[in-house]
Amino acid sequence: MSDHDSTPASGTADVLDRLAAVIDARKPAAGGDPGQSYVARLLHKGPDGFLKKIGEEATEVVMACKDADHGADRQKIVNEVADLWFHSMVALAHYGLAPRDVAAELARREGTSGIEEKALRKAQAREAAGD
Amino acid sequence: MSDHDSTPASGTADVLDRLAAVIDARKPAAGGDPGQSYVARLLHKGPDGFLKKIGEEATEVVMACKDADHGADRQKIVNEVADLWFHSMVALAHYGLAPRDVAAELARREGTSGIEEKALRKAQAREAAGD
Amino acid sequence: MSDHDSTPASGTADVLDRLAAVIDARKPAAGGDPGQSYVARLLHKGPDGFLKKIGEEATEVVMACKDADHGADRQKIVNEVADLWFHSMVALAHYGLAPRDVAAELARREGTSGIEEKALRKAQAREAAGD
Amino acid sequence: MSDHDSTPASGTADVLDRLAAVIDARKPAAGGDPGQSYVARLLHKGPDGFLKKIGEEATEVVMACKDADHGADRQKIVNEVADLWFHSMVALAHYGLAPRDVAAELARREGTSGIEEKALRKAQAREAAGD
Repeated sequence: MSDHDSTPASGTADVLDRLAAVIDARKPAAGGDPGQSYVARLLHKGPDGFLKKIGEEATEVVMACKDADHGADRQKIVNEVADLWFHSMVALAHYGLAPRDVAAELARREGTSGIEEKALRKAQAREAAGD
Repeated sequence: MSDHDSTPASGTADVLDRLAAVIDARKPAAGGDPGQSYVARLLHKGPDGFLKKIGEEATEVVMACKDADHGADRQKIVNEVADLWFHSMVALAHYGLAPRDVAAELARREGTSGIEEKALRKAQAREAAGD
Repeated sequence: MSDHDSTPASGTADVLDRLAAVIDARKPAAGGDPGQSYVARLLHKGPDGFLKKIGEEATEVVMACKDADHGADRQKIVNEVADLWFHSMVALAHYGLAPRDVAAELARREGTSGIEEKALRKAQAREAAGD
Repeated sequence: MSDHDSTPASGTADVLDRLAAVIDARKPAAGGDPGQSYVARLLHKGPDGFLKKIGEEATEVVMACKDADHGADRQKIVNEVADLWFHSMVALAHYGLAPRDVAAELARREGTSGIEEKALRKAQAREAAGD
């Protein structure tokens, strides 16, 4: 994992874009076969199935982190975040979106000075209010 | 957004890797100042804060998708997935992990023949059972 | 708490019904004032606020249970389930529903022979499929 | 459902307590058989199974409410809240707790003057901060 690993990120870069292309090829309009592919099946059945998975996988990320606090293998966290991001990508594909839209939004925020300061002021106000 | 956009998919993961480096620099051990940075503040306060956000942001992704089903702007989905992935990355950083670990896991699954078939068989069994 | 407590189980649902009446009195149509009451404010702002809280509070229940597995006070679980049920009741009120509708549904299932058997068969099928 | 229904809540009162007793009788220590009962199976397998369901069912409540905003049957909300509360009750049982502990906590808050005012001030501070 990352903190034991000095290899460069190359090779992992664009994995999400490549996976997004695979997911797009499973869309009903692209001929994806629900009888042959898990992704095609999720996309074919419509939003409720993959949205429910997003809620479930977010919960599993939380559980894996709590378990890691008490000595469990951190690879479980990696696996659950992978599941969460994967099902997020199925949702993006269903709505004609892609991970690069998300990356562009994150880059936009990074480039906008004051973003972190605004989030911080909100968090401090919540805390001052006793939250 | 992606389906109106013919530019090549350059560097989604690079944006994520760059953002991960920013988050790492906000860790208490790296001198991140909770009084100056939202991320430093989240990392300083420990897991419960960012884990709660993961649950909340997953819910907001679900709501944004449901709203898009009824005509709302799909950019809301992009924003909420960005929030969800961002807080996932704060969790990864806290546990000494990084997006490239998640990308490596996703690439590993992609390279393992039969992964989709196994997920599909499970999903079909659930459906046969009336789920 | 319950396992240290031999008093009879008087009126759980009555507390919920009473609380539901308080919530109903905070609805905009009943004259609830968003400037005076947290519930009136949630109901006035519409679904997204209380739905987000349901996702957040469900995550907090999960965290409190995980913490209890490692020795934390179980009262935290009680508090978080109370928050989750409370915000569920705000949602019910917004949609013209009440806890007694939920109780009626639970009673209906209890009275329907075969319900648990069906859920069990589904769970066993999922497990047979390697889930 | 409640707003079409003028029958008194009697009969539905104590449904939760009665259901809690059924769940308690499915605990491994009480001889619950995981091969015969869905609840016994959940309790036998330990927290991760029912905690994951709490995350999933909370998401389904959110989806059912969003669907109701666009004309879907409100009974779906009742069903999903019933699922959410039911799995919350399995968690309570696992940790030696019961719905009456939750009801007692809700009653305690109801009786504590200033509770709503505190929640309101926090919510107003969040809003002032732009949340």
